[in-house]
Amino acid sequence: MSKRPLILVTNDDGISAKGIQYLVDAMKPLGDILVVAPDKPQSGMGHAITIHNPLRLKSSNQFEDIQAYTCSGTPVDCVKLAIYEVLKRRPTLLVSGINHGSNAATNILYSGTMSAAVEGAIENIPSIGFSLLDFHSDADFEASKMYARKIAKQVLEHGIPAGTCLNVNIPKGKPEALNGAKICRQGKAFWEDFFDKRLDPHGNPYYWLTGDFSVTDKGEDTDMWALEHNYVSIVPTQFDMTAHHLIGSLNEWDL
Amino acid sequence: MSKRPLILVTNDDGISAKGIQYLVDAMKPLGDILVVAPDKPQSGMGHAITIHNPLRLKSSNQFEDIQAYTCSGTPVDCVKLAIYEVLKRRPTLLVSGINHGSNAATNILYSGTMSAAVEGAIENIPSIGFSLLDFHSDADFEASKMYARKIAKQVLEHGIPAGTCLNVNIPKGKPEALNGAKICRQGKAFWEDFFDKRLDPHGNPYYWLTGDFSVTDKGEDTDMWALEHNYVSIVPTQFDMTAHHLIGSLNEWDL
Repeated sequence: MSKRPLILVTNDDGISAKGIQYLVDAMKPLGDILVVAPDKPQSGMGHAITIHNPLRLKSSNQFEDIQAYTCSGTPVDCVKLAIYEVLKRRPTLLVSGINHGSNAATNILYSGTMSAAVEGAIENIPSIGFSLLDFHSDADFEASKMYARKIAKQVLEHGIPAGTCLNVNIPKGKPEALNGAKICRQGKAFWEDFFDKRLDPHGNPYYWLTGDFSVTDKGEDTDMWALEHNYVSIVPTQFDMTAHHLIGSLNEWDL
Repeated sequence: MSKRPLILVTNDDGISAKGIQYLVDAMKPLGDILVVAPDKPQSGMGHAITIHNPLRLKSSNQFEDIQAYTCSGTPVDCVKLAIYEVLKRRPTLLVSGINHGSNAATNILYSGTMSAAVEGAIENIPSIGFSLLDFHSDADFEASKMYARKIAKQVLEHGIPAGTCLNVNIPKGKPEALNGAKICRQGKAFWEDFFDKRLDPHGNPYYWLTGDFSVTDKGEDTDMWALEHNYVSIVPTQFDMTAHHLIGSLNEWDL
């Protein structure tokens, strides 16, 4: 009999979020599970790592019969601690999420959920980030759980080429309301930011970052299009950020 | 007479770092300058943004005759505050750095310096991140300053296509010791992490993240190769992280 795969589970909403509970449940039939997740919300941390402070790593009873730890750092710190301190080796699969809120389009850059998956890819581990388009702490993760299991099974079967991982976003709604999954490219979009300026009790200003997500991409092959049309979006994602198509023209510059 | 370009300067080592002083000096002949930089070191913050806490933005006298602000957040927060709160418009050029330490190869993912430039690209501003391969606070930035001015001039002249920015790394050494600049791709590498585990005075463990940078790429067209051979490396960088070459094969999966 073949050994069961070892599946590393992490997220950016913290170990007590509902989304990671559903992700653990989704992975249970597929292999043995290790959880290393942040001890508090780490949304918007992108690919940050903790270098100016030490990290704490603590055993957790959050999940019944599952080995779990909390880490005081970022999602990427969690991945690094899991591989180099807890396991001392690479797991078969890394899954991150299920995030409360979209990580489609350029949100991937800011996303702790996806940065954990990208870090897995850098470490040559097949890795997937899952996000549900619902920010609520009590969001309905049933459809997400179903798709997370289905997609993880395919990744265990087929693998993912070196240097890549998957960015999966799931629309709100019951499983039967979704139209299936679509392979997409990352849509073009940006945050039209708005800073909410307030005065503290001492009269000094402070600013809350808010904004509207502005989609500038009319393509029908993007994750944004798929999600709007009630498809689960799957974007194959790479950490080689080279704009290879520009190398020729830059060579014409006077440097 | 044409209006002088408006150049936004930021970094991740903080407003009082030597590197940003040299970057401001390098840009002075090229346009009018606005500095918005972190009020403390923000190395390794990647593309993190501050959403769970408010931000402070304070006027600074760090640079003579230059409008400057410190921000309590990350490099990406600095860019957002500069565009949406201080300027209320987009600058002509964004430059970030000069970082104390390399941001070549996969270091770009963890780099606050480069994430500021990538955020500029998302905002459709021609943007460049500069890094010197020397971590010391009193590093010699003369060669970096020379190349920063030269490259920024070329960018002001030619522009950079939408969706892209430049990742520039400069080897240690005097200007005359360098072999010139090379357009490169991002080298493949990863951090072989090591956690230095210690006990606090109460007997509880904590961990410092350390590691060795492991270059797995033998290519002679990478930034790592160029830097080792005493060239300034210029990697055209994009924030579309789609692994376009995988879309076909993923469509064969049973989803």
